[in-house]
Amino acid sequence: MDVPRTPPPPADHRITAVRVTPVAFRDKPLLNTVGVHEPYALRAVIEVVTEDGTYGLGESYGDLPHLQRLSRAADLIVGLSVFDLNAMLRAVTRSLAADDGLGGHGMGGMVMTSSTADRVLSPFEVAALDVQGKLIGVPVSELLGGAVRDRVEYSAYLFYKWAGHPGAADDDWGAALDPDGIVAQARRIIDEFGFSAIKLKGGVFHPEEEVAAIKALRAEFPEHPLRLDPNTAWTVPTSIGVGRDLDGIVEYLEDPTLGIEGMAAVAREVSMPLATNMAVVSFDHLPPAVAQDAVQVVLSDHHFWGGLRRSQTLGSICQTWGIGLSMHSNSHLGVSLAAMTHLAAATPNLDYACDTHWPWKDAEDDVVVPGALVFKDGAVEVPTTPGLGVELDRDRLARLHEQYQRCDVRTRDDTGYMRRFEPDFDPSPQRW
Amino acid sequence: MDVPRTPPPPADHRITAVRVTPVAFRDKPLLNTVGVHEPYALRAVIEVVTEDGTYGLGESYGDLPHLQRLSRAADLIVGLSVFDLNAMLRAVTRSLAADDGLGGHGMGGMVMTSSTADRVLSPFEVAALDVQGKLIGVPVSELLGGAVRDRVEYSAYLFYKWAGHPGAADDDWGAALDPDGIVAQARRIIDEFGFSAIKLKGGVFHPEEEVAAIKALRAEFPEHPLRLDPNTAWTVPTSIGVGRDLDGIVEYLEDPTLGIEGMAAVAREVSMPLATNMAVVSFDHLPPAVAQDAVQVVLSDHHFWGGLRRSQTLGSICQTWGIGLSMHSNSHLGVSLAAMTHLAAATPNLDYACDTHWPWKDAEDDVVVPGALVFKDGAVEVPTTPGLGVELDRDRLARLHEQYQRCDVRTRDDTGYMRRFEPDFDPSPQRW
Repeated sequence: MDVPRTPPPPADHRITAVRVTPVAFRDKPLLNTVGVHEPYALRAVIEVVTEDGTYGLGESYGDLPHLQRLSRAADLIVGLSVFDLNAMLRAVTRSLAADDGLGGHGMGGMVMTSSTADRVLSPFEVAALDVQGKLIGVPVSELLGGAVRDRVEYSAYLFYKWAGHPGAADDDWGAALDPDGIVAQARRIIDEFGFSAIKLKGGVFHPEEEVAAIKALRAEFPEHPLRLDPNTAWTVPTSIGVGRDLDGIVEYLEDPTLGIEGMAAVAREVSMPLATNMAVVSFDHLPPAVAQDAVQVVLSDHHFWGGLRRSQTLGSICQTWGIGLSMHSNSHLGVSLAAMTHLAAATPNLDYACDTHWPWKDAEDDVVVPGALVFKDGAVEVPTTPGLGVELDRDRLARLHEQYQRCDVRTRDDTGYMRRFEPDFDPSPQRW
Repeated sequence: MDVPRTPPPPADHRITAVRVTPVAFRDKPLLNTVGVHEPYALRAVIEVVTEDGTYGLGESYGDLPHLQRLSRAADLIVGLSVFDLNAMLRAVTRSLAADDGLGGHGMGGMVMTSSTADRVLSPFEVAALDVQGKLIGVPVSELLGGAVRDRVEYSAYLFYKWAGHPGAADDDWGAALDPDGIVAQARRIIDEFGFSAIKLKGGVFHPEEEVAAIKALRAEFPEHPLRLDPNTAWTVPTSIGVGRDLDGIVEYLEDPTLGIEGMAAVAREVSMPLATNMAVVSFDHLPPAVAQDAVQVVLSDHHFWGGLRRSQTLGSICQTWGIGLSMHSNSHLGVSLAAMTHLAAATPNLDYACDTHWPWKDAEDDVVVPGALVFKDGAVEVPTTPGLGVELDRDRLARLHEQYQRCDVRTRDDTGYMRRFEPDFDPSPQRW
């Protein structure tokens, strides 16, 4: 590649400082196939500041190896224009030259093959777009080509869960460990947020129990689209069996089994679309997945697809190949909710309700000024103020950073936490 | 799709007028497989004007059915924000609701399957990006993610040609109807422009004669990458024969035969990459072409791929699937040269020298103020001024519009023009 001439950017576009602040927020004992959520979830809050003092926000994983990568990349991003996303990617790539590629995936061991460069680039790109929007006076959705919807629907994300963290008091959601518990959880979360689609995180109990929970949800919520996501806990034959059992009941079955070949083998035998945020998590997975018709819905996630513009490219690829598009979530704060909402608003074919862990976070645990993002009838209104439409609350940021400093979590480790209580816990994929 | 709320755009982003001006410029009797260029080439010059008087430029085909489509779309684009490209696409789609889809392809019958919506959208999108760049104070390449090169290489585009238009004086290039003529043409165009890659437009004579011309070019220019493009004039067996004969001589063979299946059949038997701007000309051609490994290089063209951002999406798709990326050209003016240059500058994997008809146009026949775009060593420096970096010269625009009004060309018809002199001329694809 030629060396670009890179005339110095105009002063108000030039990045003069990048801040990476690790934060921790309280999390609930949500169960999944690799273990259980720890008492604190980690995130990194990124501020990109230009010469005139305008700042933009990004949010990413808070695992220590990822934080170290973000810091190294930040050093090389200073001096660039907020518009020069190609230079930003080159800086990230340079910062990773001597990287061992280990750790920092941010997803508790469930997704290990996303692109390290795309994970590191993402929050800087989002923050740069936030600055662009503020400088120009348009919302990020407008930078991304214009909102095609004024509200973005999210789904009710149900989890099997313990009543509380061991040794602590029960949380206010209580336990959900069987179909009745899941239905009660769904009732509460839908009453409170108005969601019109329901996703159950599975892979926790024997598939028969999880199928029973889905059927109980169908009986209680006959009109809500349903999804089940065991995070590759099942073999191909088990996945096919469940798929046949849930024929006509779920709108899609998410990551029933491991890998592109495995998903393709299941897809050939079941009626519903298979969705994924594990088999296809970077651009190089798309050719083999398309060749094998392995997945019919991709859950995009700007945190590991390289930011909002690259996620839109993924969206265009899905549209071109007739693949459905939904959106994945990890535990996140308000910066990510804003970014997800702008992205979904400006992506015409993102027409499934998006996932979000939002209801599981205490409302006061955040870093943005409250009030900009409100759920109504299961959807978030797309902010129409410049940039992402959320402002940093420095007191809240300081409090969550102190919480990070005080807590002993430095890498998300759902399996290690689970094994403190169940030493023989087996997180293997395809174990049923 | 939900109905967007569409708050009214800020005044300086709001499109208050769109002007579509047909122009004609003098062209030379360049031969191709469907006939010969007429004495005038047609283009449409698009101005998109915002409330504060900022204007942006686009350029497209000038065929009458296309002009009518542009005018109908223009009416619906007034009132939109220059940032809301999704709304612009919706407006274009609405404007085409009752369209018969006939004519207006702008390519003399050689490409009939590009997307009508993408052809109509393209110049408005380019003009909107030009306005965005002017409002923000950044070049279009920066809006597209940042220039990764400061100069864009173009190729020497050779044509078999008559000495002059019948009944008129010879032009200053004279005839080129055999290998010696082609080599002489190459020598002059390379001396004048400095190009370092050479493309020969074929499909005019028997393939053996065109192979001889390529071999003569190889002898005279041992270091210049060579390309041959017969625009589907050959059968599959002929294409395979030529491909084997040119093994190690051309960097790619362009559109030797018709259709995705035909290209795939040739690709399986020849060593060099096959390139196309005929078999894959819209997003819905990509899945079958990829599935069959029919083409190894796509010649993008923002005029029929829906503008600069959609062309970048094509670029990302090519990168994802390991397909090479080059750039196609029709006879064009300075607005398109600027747009092509910004696009190529901001597309990292566009690393072939781009095609351009630029040398065949009289320098004084243009609509932009001279001097902004200069060839040096076969490349154009990427403008670093805001927007596209070219300004409209209203005197020149008026002159080329008068030329349009005076000339009798209303639709590009290379075949009809040829048949005035060779009534039995056969433009059939695969005729050798």
